[in-house]
Amino acid sequence: MKFYDCKTAPSSRRARIFIAEKGIDVETIYVDLASREHMGQEFRRINPKCTVPVLEILDGTRFTTTAAIWAYLESKYPNPALMGETAKERGVITDIQWQIEINGFLAMAEFLRNSAPAMKNRALPGPYDYEQIPDLADRGKSRTLQFLSDIEEIIGDKPYVAGDKFSIADIDLLVFVDFARWRKLTLPPTSTNALRWYHTIRKRPSSKI
Amino acid sequence: MKFYDCKTAPSSRRARIFIAEKGIDVETIYVDLASREHMGQEFRRINPKCTVPVLEILDGTRFTTTAAIWAYLESKYPNPALMGETAKERGVITDIQWQIEINGFLAMAEFLRNSAPAMKNRALPGPYDYEQIPDLADRGKSRTLQFLSDIEEIIGDKPYVAGDKFSIADIDLLVFVDFARWRKLTLPPTSTNALRWYHTIRKRPSSKI
Repeated sequence: MKFYDCKTAPSSRRARIFIAEKGIDVETIYVDLASREHMGQEFRRINPKCTVPVLEILDGTRFTTTAAIWAYLESKYPNPALMGETAKERGVITDIQWQIEINGFLAMAEFLRNSAPAMKNRALPGPYDYEQIPDLADRGKSRTLQFLSDIEEIIGDKPYVAGDKFSIADIDLLVFVDFARWRKLTLPPTSTNALRWYHTIRKRPSSKI
Repeated sequence: MKFYDCKTAPSSRRARIFIAEKGIDVETIYVDLASREHMGQEFRRINPKCTVPVLEILDGTRFTTTAAIWAYLESKYPNPALMGETAKERGVITDIQWQIEINGFLAMAEFLRNSAPAMKNRALPGPYDYEQIPDLADRGKSRTLQFLSDIEEIIGDKPYVAGDKFSIADIDLLVFVDFARWRKLTLPPTSTNALRWYHTIRKRPSSKI
C-alpha cells in the first residue's frame, strides 16, 4: 500500500497515528503542501481533489478521506480495534468523532483558512479557489474556543474519550487539540479531566509522529 | 428503541430511510422543529445539542448524529449491508459519503441557514446562536450548484453510487438532491447518468418516506 502523507497536515496525522497504532506497513510518499505540490499536475493524477492523505491499495483503488482510510484499514486489519467492537461501542465512538469533526476540526479550519495570509483565495481545500470570509474566521475562532472548553465534559472521568478503550476518538481529539495549540488556542487551565487525558495520550509512541 | 424524528429535516430522513431499508421496528417520536420544540427544556433533556435525529437504545444510550445511528444499526442488524461488506467496499462507500457530506450537505446547509429569514441568528444547528453570514450563503449556493454538476461523474455508468449495490451513499445523495430541489437547485438536464440514477432510486418504497 502507498500512503501519501504530509507531516504538517492535521488530517494526514490522523491517518498516520491510526496506521502506527495498528502496526501496518505502508510505503510513505511525502507531498509538500508548502510548495503547493498537491495542486500540481502530477499529484492531480493521484487525487484530483488535491488533498492529502491518500491511501492507494494493491488493486490501484485510492481512498482520499481520513474516514475512508480508517474504514478500509479497520476492516482489513481488525486488531487492535480502533472503531469499536460492539454495536454500542461503534455508535458511541462515531457520535463523539462526529462532534470533534464538526465542532472542532471544521471550526479550526474555518478560522485558519479564512485568516492566514498564505491561504488567500484558498479558504477551502480542493481543486476550486474560494475567497476568504473574515466573519467566518471570527466565528471559527469563537467556535474553536467553545469546543476546547466543552472537551472537559466530553472526557469526564473516563480514561479515554469514548470510555475504557483507546479509539479513533482519542486520535481525532489529540490531533485537534495540537492543531489548535499551534495557533495558540489551548485547553482551559481549569479543565483538569481534559488535561489529564491529554497528557496521558501524549505519552503514547504514536502521538510523537 | 425510540427514534426522535422530524419529517422536514434532511438528516432525520437519512436515518429514516436507513431504518426502512433494514426493516427495523422503532417507536417514532416526532419533534416539531417549526415550533422550535427542539430548543425547549423538555427536548434538551433528550439531546442537549438540540438536534434531530436521535436514537435511544434499550439501555438508555442516545445517539445524536446520523453517522452514529447508521454505525450502531449496521452493526446490530447487518442484513442487508448498507455500509459495505468487504474492506474495499467500506472504504469506497465512506469516501463517497464523505464527499456528499462536505461538498453537498454542508454547502446546502450554509446556503440555507445563512439566507433564510426564519433562520436569523440560527446559522448553525445546536444550542448556541450564531449570526448569519451573507457571504457564506453565497458561497454555499455556488458550492451546491458545483456539487450538483459533479454528481454526473460520481455516478458514471454505475447502477448505484458506490457500484453494484445500494448503500448509504445512495441514501445520502438522494436526500441531498431532494434537499437542494426544495430550494430550486437541481441536477443539470445534461446529467444523463445522474438523472437515470435519481429516477431509479426514487422508485424504491423507502424514498417515499
